[in-house]
Amino acid sequence: MPPYVRLHIRLLPHTSHNFETQICEAIASEISGGNLPQGSRLPPVRVLAHQLGISKNTVQFAYDELAARGLVVPKNRQGVFVSETFMTARSEEKPKVQVPAPSLIPRPMPNSKMHSQDTILLSNVFVDPDLLPNEQLNECFRSVLKSTGLPSFYDTQGFYPLREWIAERLSQRGISATAEEVIITTGSQQALDIACRALQHKHIATENPAYHIGKILFEMNQMQLVGLPIHPFKGLDLSLWEKRLAQARPSLLYLTPNFQNPTGYSYSSQELRKIAEMAERYQFGILEDDWGADMLSFSEYRPSLRALCGDNVLYLNSFTKKLLPSLRVGYLVGNRQMVPSLVAAKRVATLGHPSLIEEALFEFLSRGYYDTHLQKLQTALDRRYHHCLQILEQVMPDEVAWTTPGGSPILWLELPPSIDLPSLIATMQSQRINITDTRSSFFGTPHLHGIKIGFAYNKEGALEHALQTLANTLKQELAR
Amino acid sequence: MPPYVRLHIRLLPHTSHNFETQICEAIASEISGGNLPQGSRLPPVRVLAHQLGISKNTVQFAYDELAARGLVVPKNRQGVFVSETFMTARSEEKPKVQVPAPSLIPRPMPNSKMHSQDTILLSNVFVDPDLLPNEQLNECFRSVLKSTGLPSFYDTQGFYPLREWIAERLSQRGISATAEEVIITTGSQQALDIACRALQHKHIATENPAYHIGKILFEMNQMQLVGLPIHPFKGLDLSLWEKRLAQARPSLLYLTPNFQNPTGYSYSSQELRKIAEMAERYQFGILEDDWGADMLSFSEYRPSLRALCGDNVLYLNSFTKKLLPSLRVGYLVGNRQMVPSLVAAKRVATLGHPSLIEEALFEFLSRGYYDTHLQKLQTALDRRYHHCLQILEQVMPDEVAWTTPGGSPILWLELPPSIDLPSLIATMQSQRINITDTRSSFFGTPHLHGIKIGFAYNKEGALEHALQTLANTLKQELAR
Repeated sequence: MPPYVRLHIRLLPHTSHNFETQICEAIASEISGGNLPQGSRLPPVRVLAHQLGISKNTVQFAYDELAARGLVVPKNRQGVFVSETFMTARSEEKPKVQVPAPSLIPRPMPNSKMHSQDTILLSNVFVDPDLLPNEQLNECFRSVLKSTGLPSFYDTQGFYPLREWIAERLSQRGISATAEEVIITTGSQQALDIACRALQHKHIATENPAYHIGKILFEMNQMQLVGLPIHPFKGLDLSLWEKRLAQARPSLLYLTPNFQNPTGYSYSSQELRKIAEMAERYQFGILEDDWGADMLSFSEYRPSLRALCGDNVLYLNSFTKKLLPSLRVGYLVGNRQMVPSLVAAKRVATLGHPSLIEEALFEFLSRGYYDTHLQKLQTALDRRYHHCLQILEQVMPDEVAWTTPGGSPILWLELPPSIDLPSLIATMQSQRINITDTRSSFFGTPHLHGIKIGFAYNKEGALEHALQTLANTLKQELAR
Repeated sequence: MPPYVRLHIRLLPHTSHNFETQICEAIASEISGGNLPQGSRLPPVRVLAHQLGISKNTVQFAYDELAARGLVVPKNRQGVFVSETFMTARSEEKPKVQVPAPSLIPRPMPNSKMHSQDTILLSNVFVDPDLLPNEQLNECFRSVLKSTGLPSFYDTQGFYPLREWIAERLSQRGISATAEEVIITTGSQQALDIACRALQHKHIATENPAYHIGKILFEMNQMQLVGLPIHPFKGLDLSLWEKRLAQARPSLLYLTPNFQNPTGYSYSSQELRKIAEMAERYQFGILEDDWGADMLSFSEYRPSLRALCGDNVLYLNSFTKKLLPSLRVGYLVGNRQMVPSLVAAKRVATLGHPSLIEEALFEFLSRGYYDTHLQKLQTALDRRYHHCLQILEQVMPDEVAWTTPGGSPILWLELPPSIDLPSLIATMQSQRINITDTRSSFFGTPHLHGIKIGFAYNKEGALEHALQTLANTLKQELAR
């Protein structure tokens, strides 16, 4: 049986025309208007009767009338078809309407290049998946699917037990938070996004160089931006920060106290305290991105800004680097006054995160797998970090300097000013070593001249090869 | 062993101070600056040596010097601690810094009320989870977890085989699309969001009444908005639309050709064609939300705007209503010129969707489960729809009218003007029947006076009870 066209007929009960006539006229007008191609099959009588909630007889009478007018032809056992004779005059293909394409913001994609398997991603900020607890997570997914099944709906704010676990965990680190204040997000990226979206005054300050996709997000969210320089070797020039903040008066300061991307810089407690004092003086809010905190050795701690300054600080974190990027689970912590606006911002953005992911993650966390995993992860990262420092020491020319973040997936390698970054990156790419160009992470002319080294993503052999190749290239350039 | 504090010491190789002195001075300044509380444990010698990539002896010398100055006290086998004597003078609790809360847009949450299990959600636009293929989906998740395991990373644009399947499916419906043009999104909500975000001129036209969370999204995305009235009983007044469009000159028209929410209205082919002509005349793009298409009987079809007007039309759809809300999978289809901007907008918003979800959904689709499910679903929905019409016919007073959409999860019930909507909703709520107030879906004063009836979500008994109760309440009101 051929498919049939769907008809939209609105029956008006209180007119002089009965239903048969209304149906007949509606279909006749669709046909003569050219909206039903010749040979189209009308809905079966029972289907149209069902749709309109009327008797089959009424529809049959209307179809009979259409057939009598020669507009349709009933074919035995196959249905009723729009007459081919009638349509001949209109049968030439109508030119299609040319709707204009909506005009979009041209936007180059960061990190969008596809790399072959044997390319080393030297600046990659992720953790090597081989160090992540894929099997244990898999076990938790299967367990949830088996015991409680696939959840049908979702909580826009996030699966409540997961929020409780996070709040409890934060409390142990001296960060006041309740499950009602925690919002699960699609990675920390969405946490950043909804904080921006909910912000009343679209004026934000952040680090220079900034987290690159964050910077693009701010630009796309039409935020006014001010950059506060970070120098990973000298620390922060807080008097310059204060001058900028006093002048710009942003409504929010977004910062990453641990292992800032791309510099790998971590703020000292004293710097955090001074920044908090500036927030009070110049009345700006703080959005603290604490993604690096759980990348520390298990026994280390340092108070976060949220712990220092209370629940007025918006706090965000994620499981992307620590557990598995593909889960896309992050979280944002506000306070009771802020949460409704933030949840509303999340609702308009995505409505919610897939609940199976949230439930399986909760299973993983509540089984206590997280801490044992973090300890193992930290040991492995420490080994890679130390190995990276050793290699750098061995191979790099004297003119090259690097930071010693003591953890996290990246460190910053500062290069001599005579090195041309784009041509270095191209030379390395030709040797199947990819380096991220961080220059667009800066506001204006970069005050640093270097690259990110991702020692957590790369295995020791690959890292050694890449760093040796880089060192050779640099030496050649410097010898010119 | 007590936890130890993390120290940030940046060693400068080319200064007059050696590393011991630099470490010693850095720690001394942290202590005298009050940043290390009394009794804090310093990092073990091996840890600090590891972090800084220097010898343990160097650190040990620095610690010895600090101990000699009385700033720290080594305790046997427990570590080195900040001296309590030294800190006594500073031991009183410092007042915490009061960071101001960022000022957020106050935003009431739509549909945020919690409902007890025995509340009937009469306006719910979802499909009853009992009609959804939960078990088959579960099977597909377990199969993916078992065979290929949890994916580590994600493709920002979406799992390629899933995009291929969607493109192939759309092609069968006459909609030109390739896998490269399909972007997987977190529900159709994100498709709507990224289309807005990528839009160069933030000026959008949409239906009045509008899809409510879409309208809030547009407002939050700071779009300029124009509403085009829909009258589900009379059709569209396209000459009024044209007047509005000619005057407002939006850059994009967002519309829902099938089963518009909240009216349940479906556009006729003729209306779609005229709208396409207007798009050409007034040079606006079209964003077509086709979520209702797969809610039709399997054998029905009608050309979509994307099919009529080509790949300049942005097309969106989702699996939320048809498969499972908690998957949060929708998609947006552009063309090769538009995709980079749209993917960039998705990247800044969420970076990507959890890949396990995309892979399991692909498994479900490629096994051919979707079509058999849709057929069953359609039969079940048809039954509920027909039952709903019957009940309305039986119980509603003559002054009440309703649309006959012929499918989808909702129809529109138009009430007599004398009925006060807020008090009706309150009365019903007191009888544990929740009705969504759609008045804020309108632009300005509503030209309709009614409510949504969700016949797909509610089981027949519950729907009958709710409609009977509603009818009784209406009759009482009308008799006053």
